[in-house]
Amino acid sequence: MMDKIEHIGIAVKSLEAAIPLYEQLLNTPCYKTELVAAENVNTAFFNAGPNKIELLESASPDGVIAKFIEKKGEGIHHIAFAVADIDAEMKRLAAAGFTLLNETPKQGADNKLVCFLHPKNTNGVLIELCMEKPAAQ
Amino acid sequence: MMDKIEHIGIAVKSLEAAIPLYEQLLNTPCYKTELVAAENVNTAFFNAGPNKIELLESASPDGVIAKFIEKKGEGIHHIAFAVADIDAEMKRLAAAGFTLLNETPKQGADNKLVCFLHPKNTNGVLIELCMEKPAAQ
Repeated sequence: MMDKIEHIGIAVKSLEAAIPLYEQLLNTPCYKTELVAAENVNTAFFNAGPNKIELLESASPDGVIAKFIEKKGEGIHHIAFAVADIDAEMKRLAAAGFTLLNETPKQGADNKLVCFLHPKNTNGVLIELCMEKPAAQ
Repeated sequence: MMDKIEHIGIAVKSLEAAIPLYEQLLNTPCYKTELVAAENVNTAFFNAGPNKIELLESASPDGVIAKFIEKKGEGIHHIAFAVADIDAEMKRLAAAGFTLLNETPKQGADNKLVCFLHPKNTNGVLIELCMEKPAAQ
């Protein structure tokens, strides 16, 4: 079960240029920027009601976002769905024949545990599952 | 102001193949299929909490979706944002320098009035504004 679209990730060349543009487009301020070190990506977040837009800028010339833009140009990179139990969803989707790109949930932006699905099984769409990290004990 | 992501449109070659796959992926049944005659597109809808996924299949070999797939392959085609007042949003965005692809709101799928923004101003993202059609009087 997908609870909602948590966010849409959009690959951009420059956050400095794209942030003011998306602030105008969405008519709301960027509420957070964050470096996701594991992915080598700078991110910027905007709210759209219950959903978010995440802009993605490569933090290095050979990062995944730089390679994506080189190949396809700027544009939508992935859809992230919020799930209540990421382990259960990963098990369900693997059993249904989808290809998980992560064996175990990994650290994502915005305090999330995430897992990606290979686009070869999803009509070319890169899909992320994400779950809010449980509070530390 | 964007109230939420109303739906994400995904271009697929075959609804017949993609519908059962997305039913498994999203773990929810397709709740509607609809031909949007003005766009020459067959659509199929799925719920994801407050949001929807819309699969798009060309209803003819030379339709916009067929051309999109020919050029870019299957994948995400557009993001649609729900707005409360589409005329006011169109006016606001045109004044801010965005390029509207429709001069006036047009009939979309799912009982909506819609307007598209040119992706040249939005980092390659095709954006749709949509508003539930007022009830007929």
